[in-house]
Amino acid sequence: MTETIINRRDLSFLLYELLNVERFTSHPRYADHSRETFDAALETAYKVAYDHFLPHCRKNDLEEPQFDGERVHIIPEVKEALRQYIDTGLMVAGKDYELGGMQLPATVAQSCTAVVKGANTSTFSYAGLTVAASNLLLAYGTEAQKERYAYPMLEGRFFGTMALTEPQAGSSLSDIKTTAVPEDDGTYRLTGNKIFISGGDHELSENIVHLVLGRVKGAPAGVKGISLFIVPKYLVNDDGSLGERNDVALAGLIHKMGWRGTTSTMLNFGEKDGAKAYLIGEPGKGLKYMFHMMNEARIGVGMGAVVLGYAGYLQALEYAKGRRQGRPVDSKDPAQKPVPLIEHADIKRMLLAQKAYVEGGLSLCMFAASLVDEKRTTSDEAAASEADLLLDVMTPMVKAWPSQYCLEANNLAIQVHGGYGYTREYQVEQLYRDNRLNPIHEGTNGIQGLDLLGRKVMMQNGAGFDLLVARIKASIEEGQANSTVQPYAAQLAAALAKAIDTTQVLRQTLHGGQAAKALANATIYLDLMGQLVVAWLWLQQALAAERGLRSGETQDEAFYRGKLAACQYFFHYELPKVYQHADLLTSLDTTCLEAEEAWF
Amino acid sequence: MTETIINRRDLSFLLYELLNVERFTSHPRYADHSRETFDAALETAYKVAYDHFLPHCRKNDLEEPQFDGERVHIIPEVKEALRQYIDTGLMVAGKDYELGGMQLPATVAQSCTAVVKGANTSTFSYAGLTVAASNLLLAYGTEAQKERYAYPMLEGRFFGTMALTEPQAGSSLSDIKTTAVPEDDGTYRLTGNKIFISGGDHELSENIVHLVLGRVKGAPAGVKGISLFIVPKYLVNDDGSLGERNDVALAGLIHKMGWRGTTSTMLNFGEKDGAKAYLIGEPGKGLKYMFHMMNEARIGVGMGAVVLGYAGYLQALEYAKGRRQGRPVDSKDPAQKPVPLIEHADIKRMLLAQKAYVEGGLSLCMFAASLVDEKRTTSDEAAASEADLLLDVMTPMVKAWPSQYCLEANNLAIQVHGGYGYTREYQVEQLYRDNRLNPIHEGTNGIQGLDLLGRKVMMQNGAGFDLLVARIKASIEEGQANSTVQPYAAQLAAALAKAIDTTQVLRQTLHGGQAAKALANATIYLDLMGQLVVAWLWLQQALAAERGLRSGETQDEAFYRGKLAACQYFFHYELPKVYQHADLLTSLDTTCLEAEEAWF
Repeated sequence: MTETIINRRDLSFLLYELLNVERFTSHPRYADHSRETFDAALETAYKVAYDHFLPHCRKNDLEEPQFDGERVHIIPEVKEALRQYIDTGLMVAGKDYELGGMQLPATVAQSCTAVVKGANTSTFSYAGLTVAASNLLLAYGTEAQKERYAYPMLEGRFFGTMALTEPQAGSSLSDIKTTAVPEDDGTYRLTGNKIFISGGDHELSENIVHLVLGRVKGAPAGVKGISLFIVPKYLVNDDGSLGERNDVALAGLIHKMGWRGTTSTMLNFGEKDGAKAYLIGEPGKGLKYMFHMMNEARIGVGMGAVVLGYAGYLQALEYAKGRRQGRPVDSKDPAQKPVPLIEHADIKRMLLAQKAYVEGGLSLCMFAASLVDEKRTTSDEAAASEADLLLDVMTPMVKAWPSQYCLEANNLAIQVHGGYGYTREYQVEQLYRDNRLNPIHEGTNGIQGLDLLGRKVMMQNGAGFDLLVARIKASIEEGQANSTVQPYAAQLAAALAKAIDTTQVLRQTLHGGQAAKALANATIYLDLMGQLVVAWLWLQQALAAERGLRSGETQDEAFYRGKLAACQYFFHYELPKVYQHADLLTSLDTTCLEAEEAWF
Repeated sequence: MTETIINRRDLSFLLYELLNVERFTSHPRYADHSRETFDAALETAYKVAYDHFLPHCRKNDLEEPQFDGERVHIIPEVKEALRQYIDTGLMVAGKDYELGGMQLPATVAQSCTAVVKGANTSTFSYAGLTVAASNLLLAYGTEAQKERYAYPMLEGRFFGTMALTEPQAGSSLSDIKTTAVPEDDGTYRLTGNKIFISGGDHELSENIVHLVLGRVKGAPAGVKGISLFIVPKYLVNDDGSLGERNDVALAGLIHKMGWRGTTSTMLNFGEKDGAKAYLIGEPGKGLKYMFHMMNEARIGVGMGAVVLGYAGYLQALEYAKGRRQGRPVDSKDPAQKPVPLIEHADIKRMLLAQKAYVEGGLSLCMFAASLVDEKRTTSDEAAASEADLLLDVMTPMVKAWPSQYCLEANNLAIQVHGGYGYTREYQVEQLYRDNRLNPIHEGTNGIQGLDLLGRKVMMQNGAGFDLLVARIKASIEEGQANSTVQPYAAQLAAALAKAIDTTQVLRQTLHGGQAAKALANATIYLDLMGQLVVAWLWLQQALAAERGLRSGETQDEAFYRGKLAACQYFFHYELPKVYQHADLLTSLDTTCLEAEEAWF
């Protein structure tokens, strides 16, 4: 079978050699687990991915869901794959035993998710959204709400959505208009229009649980007036059986550039007499609750971008190995057989770039997941809040970096295929189209830049940023002691110093009351920090590869050499961008800020 | 009407204020012309573009050509648009009067082409290919061949193709296998399979004239054995009437990611008893002749990339002006009305980047076209060969730079639209898909890098490169004298010095017999030189804008300020890349060259 899903050896390397996830099994929560149980879960993930998700990935794109005015029609393979996936128990792999879960560490559970998602992002999305929605209810719902909506989602009987965006508001959630009027029985009647709601309608599950942002009538303007509601497609009776259809109507499907297998919907709530809605937690705290789900969703976006980039990379690699074309630049004898594409330096450059992006992005997302486990498994309160803070500061990078660079990996995968890559006979064009969503949804990358520089780096007087710096410094110190890795450690130290200086300048500007000026190039700052952090992870990967090489397992030598080559690529071709960015940022460049509308 | 085709004011600026095309009218060939006749031609181009090309641009994508096994079905708007275009005479705008042309300078003719192409690239392609094929026959065909094939193409009765690529050979033309066996009457019987032949079948014209690369039976291996043949779809009788169908069969249409309105075909030549073929010029010189057309085609690709990027930019600009969303970072009162997107610094950054790319790319392509006019209008032989050499050295950049950066402009246009940009309700996603072909066809950008560094910069002992340097230095000198532009002149001088040093190092390495090492990062060198050259053109645009501002035409002030802002953007955000590239190149980095297949 063609290997198009994350390289299994790579995943093991990251889990066991880079992140040492076995350390978590010393904690009571994970006491039943071991490398064997982790590997068994991964085995299951690969099996269901290859057997049920990968085969219809292309069909999902070519035969996108159709709405006939009454029902949404989706190719049957989608429902079947999701059933199979739910049956494996992997959808709730990280959940508590009493919730039917496997209590796997988040890092391992995320790896399993990545494998399945990597086989078919569109089909997986229905499950991903359901997990996210159920997590929110588990965190903030009442026991009755959990019973009625969360548990059926965990069982895979109900699916979930996040209904945030409105046609007029887009990224600006403070402007949403959906309104909920309280009823005497404590429920609400909700009316409003939502757009871009993924999984907003289908017949893949018994019911759909919409988590809807809206305002209780009379609530203040802005984010403080936003509350969160449960609005099920079908009302749920006290005994858990389904009641009548709620007042939620599908106004239409949105036709997307890619990611076509997941319905993207316009939903009208309460066109008749208001949709029955149930408040979650307290009024006015909707955005806070939603952001609990959003941060998780943002890590999911990063991982989603990685797996699409990874699939393209593996396809480009296979093509470059199999396709013979041209001859070496210094030996062009036409009587000689053409060489495989992979022998050309520029093809190797494009493959190394893809490898550096997708394996770098994967290590970033998995590191983020390991912070969740760090937090859960430490008994030290300070260490727990440290892990939490670090994850918070890294989230914008985890969302944005892969969504930019793994998209670029897809672009390069097309280029390696030449003319064939531009045709629909090969899948790389679809992967590019699918991945193009990731820099947009769950907060555009522009918004991630503002979040990183305007909030995350500033919060608690820079404590999160300082934590990140301390961790990077520790790796640099380790790297200094290894002769192969030492040059990268030195480069990273220099880049880190630049990043610290830059952050200091921007922080002073912000504190000096010049927010517009400080934030004018926040997206550039996000890229600078992303490059720095991924370089740091590549340094760690190189150190782990060096350990592997020293262990003398010769069958893995090529694998470890590949890690060192990708690390070298990243430090030679990518990291130097940091200096250009730092120059621009420390000069507080106002070219864009001061550009006037009439000049365009 | 929504302005989605190249800004007319910008085109006038480039023609009259930057390139001073009126100077060419002093030459006898263009003596009948004036700014008035140029403007009249442009007026016609805009009219036919808006009336007949733009309206079906989206439909062309959604309803791509279908092959029913016998005939190719294309939406009727395509044929009608091409008829209208041919009727304007613009297809042959640059041709001699006696050929039915208007004898417009190439710079003006290219501008007219760009306008029409910018409205609908897919539909225009049929005409573009026909012009290119007719040019080749005018240059290398016999009088009888011109009479029989070229003139009907100029009249728009026949259309043309370039049939180079074969399934097994791709970019490696030296490996083509199509074979022609001489007949007693001086004609040939040709057999072979071609792929990715744009416009390879349709019923838009009376006949299709394929220009086919192949080998006369027994010819030597490699490029020296390649000849060029005319293979018409229908044989042409002595009186010009159409005879029987030639042995050319459509094996199938290729389904592309974008550019869907132009048929991309697999053609089987000579499945029955060999296709009737007519040799052009001498045997073994096919590639030389084809490259006459290829260089022109490469400038056409650059311009094609520009106009697609330009259309996306104008759409993003309109969206950003009209859509209100969010509030300034330093004034987030939700009681205030949201501001238009264009007021956000990051949106302005994305718009300025697009402006810098598309207007920079347009100036590059038009400058290249003006070199054609320089060559034609000078009586000084040295000046003529200078213009020729400069064009030759610049061609890889003219092809590759816009196809990379104007594609990135399309990517940014999607991002400015947010979630809407990802839907098929807006056109920006199509523009991205259409433009993705440009870095691939007519020589991938990787091949352009090898062409620039391995051939163009080396030829005649670097004479072409030296010419380019001399021209850039002249602009720097001019820029030094202007206080606004002076900082850019200084930056360009420093970047130029880096480029010269880098080129010197690479040249020595090549001369030292280390071709593989010197060329390992040719694509990076191409990007370095492209950035340098576009910065140079932005410096020239800034100088022209400064002249405009000094002239005191106040109604144009915002336009000129916009030019200066885009120039500033380019120098602050883009040009500094040159330094990172130069460091990598002068270190003769072998990371990619030495990466081994087993490491991936």
